[in-house]
Amino acid sequence: MKLGLLGDFVSAYDRRIRDRLKTLWEIVAVPDDAPPARLAAALAEIDAAIVIAWKPGMPESPKLRLLQVPGAGYETLDLAAVPPKAAVCSAFGHEDCMGEYAVMAMLAWGIRFLETERRFRRGNWKDSSRFGGKTHEEFAGKVVGILGFGRIGQASATRAHALGARIVAVNRTPRPKPGYVERLYAWSDMEAFLAASDFVVVACALSDDTRGLLDAKRLGAMKKTGVIVNLARGHVADEDALFDALKNRRIGGAILDVWYRYPSADDPQAAPSRHPFHRLRNVYMTPHISGWTDGMFDRRFNQIAGNLDRLARGEPLQFVVRPASVVSG
Amino acid sequence: MKLGLLGDFVSAYDRRIRDRLKTLWEIVAVPDDAPPARLAAALAEIDAAIVIAWKPGMPESPKLRLLQVPGAGYETLDLAAVPPKAAVCSAFGHEDCMGEYAVMAMLAWGIRFLETERRFRRGNWKDSSRFGGKTHEEFAGKVVGILGFGRIGQASATRAHALGARIVAVNRTPRPKPGYVERLYAWSDMEAFLAASDFVVVACALSDDTRGLLDAKRLGAMKKTGVIVNLARGHVADEDALFDALKNRRIGGAILDVWYRYPSADDPQAAPSRHPFHRLRNVYMTPHISGWTDGMFDRRFNQIAGNLDRLARGEPLQFVVRPASVVSG
Repeated sequence: MKLGLLGDFVSAYDRRIRDRLKTLWEIVAVPDDAPPARLAAALAEIDAAIVIAWKPGMPESPKLRLLQVPGAGYETLDLAAVPPKAAVCSAFGHEDCMGEYAVMAMLAWGIRFLETERRFRRGNWKDSSRFGGKTHEEFAGKVVGILGFGRIGQASATRAHALGARIVAVNRTPRPKPGYVERLYAWSDMEAFLAASDFVVVACALSDDTRGLLDAKRLGAMKKTGVIVNLARGHVADEDALFDALKNRRIGGAILDVWYRYPSADDPQAAPSRHPFHRLRNVYMTPHISGWTDGMFDRRFNQIAGNLDRLARGEPLQFVVRPASVVSG
Repeated sequence: MKLGLLGDFVSAYDRRIRDRLKTLWEIVAVPDDAPPARLAAALAEIDAAIVIAWKPGMPESPKLRLLQVPGAGYETLDLAAVPPKAAVCSAFGHEDCMGEYAVMAMLAWGIRFLETERRFRRGNWKDSSRFGGKTHEEFAGKVVGILGFGRIGQASATRAHALGARIVAVNRTPRPKPGYVERLYAWSDMEAFLAASDFVVVACALSDDTRGLLDAKRLGAMKKTGVIVNLARGHVADEDALFDALKNRRIGGAILDVWYRYPSADDPQAAPSRHPFHRLRNVYMTPHISGWTDGMFDRRFNQIAGNLDRLARGEPLQFVVRPASVVSG
């Protein structure tokens, strides 16, 4: 069996995959700057590929049965352009650390950890209990709203619940409501869900249904003190509307780990948005790190290698987001 | 019954106490700058006092039956100087928010939240997953060592355990070991306890047994990556030894909410230590805020008012740290 690692980003995972495979694979890495003929030659013979993007007009790949992305999001794949006989699979293993990030961020927000630490490091005692400082917020009893009740949403919810928060959730497709969730809202009740939540943990996929979902109207439905925690994709919240709501204090704040623009080789210091979120005091911001742990790599590459082993053995694939068509080659 | 609020700090709590009392009390507030005769007049007639300190040489207080401190620590009371017929009681209600602070701090440490946020706010993507940034640490599976397994220690431990950490603890006096604690060390096994812990949550009282407890030798027993989380009192860790261990990276870091010096009216910008902890990158520092929430005040003043009601009704007091002598007046 032959596996293509298409592009520099996934090629860097060569060792992590190779070390975990139990079946025999030849691995072909294709760098970003490879000539088109090299990509075409690889695609002509591979059985599986790990990719982060798939555009229309890719060379033929007649044997391709598995297109594996190394994460949960696959909005960078044009599914219509993927060979019909290839299944598309995503991978997880990031949900545990993302759930940890979510509760850390919400706790830190209530404690005003960043601003208090920054001031105290400069020698300012104004936040101190010993100086009549302002009290901070407890997390227990807060309503944590989970927007997108998939793996990441559930990992955030169970941790928040274990710390005494009340959990509500909303999901595009109906799901059974676990006992610890107080209310699972219908997608059409989005505004009631937002109005009920002290924190809104954004944990849904980016799709046509969710792009710009948190627009001015929906952000306006939130509590004045409500806080967005976006771990999913920047564009789930409309860039202009979110900045405006934060700047004008129509919502309490935002903890943003995902962005509107990312750096590239051409522009390694790209600003994460066309708006200066970094100037807002009611924003905590990190550069897409919530799922970035060694534990995630362990879990994720065990899954990916497991899928390749399954393909080699003719067993059913896991984490399929688009099945292969049944037409046999 | 008469209650004295001795000093400005506790006098500020007049309303919180008054609103919660169910029995009839006359309340006398004595400011810090009151003439000695006014303090003596108050002490001559009060049945109970709320204080943060009690020094030798206080005027006579023949009716005093309850000396209530508005927190857990009472190292500022000279117990030998307290009238023998007065019980000394502490108060709690801070343990829940302190437990929240402890898990927040440990999660934030693993995520490198402060330094990553600070860099990204300045436009630096180096920590990003999209830029090959260094992975961060997961909290689940870490060994959280609780030094002082009282209310605050237990509130930290249960929350850390709920997030998947492994819990060990050490306590001066033997205690039953709850099932979620992997090992409860004897006080004499302090170094083994420290060596086992990824995080050491300091949650013991400051006393002759604990002052300077974490000295150079004991800090040297910690893992090189071990992190001190001090929520208790600065002086449990020797000031010089802690700074030295941090500066020379003999331990991984420290999250410090309690200090060696505090501001006063004369010196409102007092440095928190004679050493520049604020210059160390492996320190997160806050100005004694971990227990500072409205929820704490609610819980604590319900306890304090409850104790005053008990005294008025002749019922047994709660949270007694030094009983009254049985000699009747």
